[in-house]
Amino acid sequence: MTPGDTIVAPATPFGYSGVAVLRMSGADALSILSNLSGKHNFVRRQATLSSLKDQHGNLIDRCLVTVFMKPNSYTGEDVVEISTHGNPSTVEDVVSAVCALGGRPAEAGEFTRRAFINGKMDLIQVEAVASLINSKSVENSRCQQKILGGTLSKTMHSLRDRLIVLLSGFEYQMDISEEDLRPSEKEHIHEELREILTAVNQFESTFYLGRLLNRGATVVIAGEPNVGKSTLLNCLADSSRAIVSDTPGTTRDTIEVELLIGGAPVRFVDTAGIRDSNDSVEKEGVRRTREHIKKADLILSLTDDPKSNHILKTDMPILKVVNKSDKHRDKMTDKSIIHISAINNLGVALLKEKISKALGVNKISTEATYLSTTRQHNAITLCSSAVNNALDLFVSSGLDVELLSFEIRTALDAIDSILGRTSPDEILNHVFGSLCVGK
Amino acid sequence: MTPGDTIVAPATPFGYSGVAVLRMSGADALSILSNLSGKHNFVRRQATLSSLKDQHGNLIDRCLVTVFMKPNSYTGEDVVEISTHGNPSTVEDVVSAVCALGGRPAEAGEFTRRAFINGKMDLIQVEAVASLINSKSVENSRCQQKILGGTLSKTMHSLRDRLIVLLSGFEYQMDISEEDLRPSEKEHIHEELREILTAVNQFESTFYLGRLLNRGATVVIAGEPNVGKSTLLNCLADSSRAIVSDTPGTTRDTIEVELLIGGAPVRFVDTAGIRDSNDSVEKEGVRRTREHIKKADLILSLTDDPKSNHILKTDMPILKVVNKSDKHRDKMTDKSIIHISAINNLGVALLKEKISKALGVNKISTEATYLSTTRQHNAITLCSSAVNNALDLFVSSGLDVELLSFEIRTALDAIDSILGRTSPDEILNHVFGSLCVGK
Repeated sequence: MTPGDTIVAPATPFGYSGVAVLRMSGADALSILSNLSGKHNFVRRQATLSSLKDQHGNLIDRCLVTVFMKPNSYTGEDVVEISTHGNPSTVEDVVSAVCALGGRPAEAGEFTRRAFINGKMDLIQVEAVASLINSKSVENSRCQQKILGGTLSKTMHSLRDRLIVLLSGFEYQMDISEEDLRPSEKEHIHEELREILTAVNQFESTFYLGRLLNRGATVVIAGEPNVGKSTLLNCLADSSRAIVSDTPGTTRDTIEVELLIGGAPVRFVDTAGIRDSNDSVEKEGVRRTREHIKKADLILSLTDDPKSNHILKTDMPILKVVNKSDKHRDKMTDKSIIHISAINNLGVALLKEKISKALGVNKISTEATYLSTTRQHNAITLCSSAVNNALDLFVSSGLDVELLSFEIRTALDAIDSILGRTSPDEILNHVFGSLCVGK
Repeated sequence: MTPGDTIVAPATPFGYSGVAVLRMSGADALSILSNLSGKHNFVRRQATLSSLKDQHGNLIDRCLVTVFMKPNSYTGEDVVEISTHGNPSTVEDVVSAVCALGGRPAEAGEFTRRAFINGKMDLIQVEAVASLINSKSVENSRCQQKILGGTLSKTMHSLRDRLIVLLSGFEYQMDISEEDLRPSEKEHIHEELREILTAVNQFESTFYLGRLLNRGATVVIAGEPNVGKSTLLNCLADSSRAIVSDTPGTTRDTIEVELLIGGAPVRFVDTAGIRDSNDSVEKEGVRRTREHIKKADLILSLTDDPKSNHILKTDMPILKVVNKSDKHRDKMTDKSIIHISAINNLGVALLKEKISKALGVNKISTEATYLSTTRQHNAITLCSSAVNNALDLFVSSGLDVELLSFEIRTALDAIDSILGRTSPDEILNHVFGSLCVGK
């Protein structure tokens, strides 16, 4: 990547449609456009109908062209947006013509990388762009919009400011001895460290909800063959994607359905029935089921016999469900067990509610913002542990300025890495690589 | 369809991408935009960053919005273009918010239908838009660009003008008898009818090339089992989509590969081997092969024995090909037979050239424009036959003004229907329905 050279890429999906949009960004974007269109002096931000021609003078397309002059553009460089007819070969032609004039095809996330380099957004906002594009629910989109708008960055900056004030205080106090410190000053440092720690920990705890919104959760439906696992899945999905039959062992491989529950994309996995079997295909199915269970966020342990012990032994979060409740006359006493009749859609709404509670989906609020990437979470955990160390140090050893400064600097670095101020290239490459070409 | 009400639709393909574009068109487009954005007085054609909110005040997205005031827009109505993040649920949110404010989702081709109604383009140009979007080759795109730019319409208009002059001349001559006509005047009418007929017929003859560019052609590879049909297909495609094996009858169903030859999309169909078989699956394959052969534009009749009679009896255009030429020592004398070795890629380039000639692809010129839809072709055929009738009438019966006028009016109507001036609704519905939603 040479910053400043001119990149080009389609910004809209591949396909046949009304319109396709391409973007060009870089120092030569405007001169390349003049070359393609034979026009000069484009008015900034004004959509202008232009005939773009290739280097042999062949008309590529009559396009709507809009130029954005630096620094007031997405990337902070000169940017040209080109709207062509939505035909893949036309889009390809424009890219080729731009490259023939010195541009080059953009890599994934390269436009946003330039926006980041030019200070148009920090790394939290970059990650929000990626989440927003891949969002599967309105709730997550709203959360990411807030983050993109800067709410999370703002909080990070205010944490950063408090850490800096603390640190510069320490460095000032390097020169004076602890004995000279007034009790009220000592109490203030103690108080400040505690408050910062609380704030950081509160943040850290939001990650679970953020990931839930952003990545979703997996619920495995497990149980003996023929207890109605596929029927339950169908009932949950209100569709018929799983094959339902009365022969035990029909569902040999797993079937997945992704549903939105309270804004979180929840994958329901219908597994092979768990039982002893000599059929090698079925055995493989059972093995895979156990694999799925290990990775799940929640297990629905399903049986059709209210008297049976649920055979599944696991430490994972589990909901015990008895199906075919319409066939059981026994008094239902155990309150931890949910009784449903999947085929009659009875009790399934209640089950959904219990699933929502068990996963924590019910705690999601569209008013809040959450940490949503593992990168952010790792950094905030590092920050929390450093502030915690500082607090421990202060309580046990008083004002050991050197050690305290080291911990606070570590905490600051963690915050800076969240914002992308000090992130190593490999982290940046990972973040930008998760964006699509053309963004 | 109520002309004037406000329609909205995504103009870019469904998918997760940098950008998605939606369009709104109609009398309320600007007021709906003001409602969504809380802004008024958008500057026409100026890309403006705006936060769009739904009716509950939730931020949908920060979008680039551009307004085009009537009549200087694609549809000729007020048009708003909205660039959002390329996320399907965001796009859906914008559509819902617009509909909550009185807009409605557009039908397929409805934007272009409005452009047509408002005189922004004629029906030939509408068809060029559809062809352009679905174009599979640069050559076809260039041809359709020319048509969209008006070259074909211009020629139609000039034909139309000549027919009108002729017709008004007849109507003037209604009042005078044939005897009063000077020989030079008679000769002029004769000449003009002949010239118009020639021009119309020239046009009619371009349809084959236009359809070839636009719709492409089908070449069926037929022959006995195990003569190397799949190998030839692979060799042609430079890929390995067909399964190749030494066991006769491997290719039971047909495999198709679409290749660009001189700008025309040519589908090569690898068929089941033709031979007597008792295997019912294979019999079905042979039956389908015969079906494919009936619909093909060209047959490659393949054998691996230079002495064999090509077993395929058909009236279709055919190229006789002998494969495995590397294994034959016999002198090759019959010049109509093409010798190749598909597995060694020998003679295949020559074969492609012969295919190109046999289909007429070599006659395609990117400088010319062609009739490219069956609708256009049917109308021009009608026009040709009417002008031809007029010419016959004039030669046999002289100036029978009433009969001549009838024929010339029929020819004029045909031209008008090509331009969409007199096309019935069902034809219009068909043409606009072939466009995508959002165009």
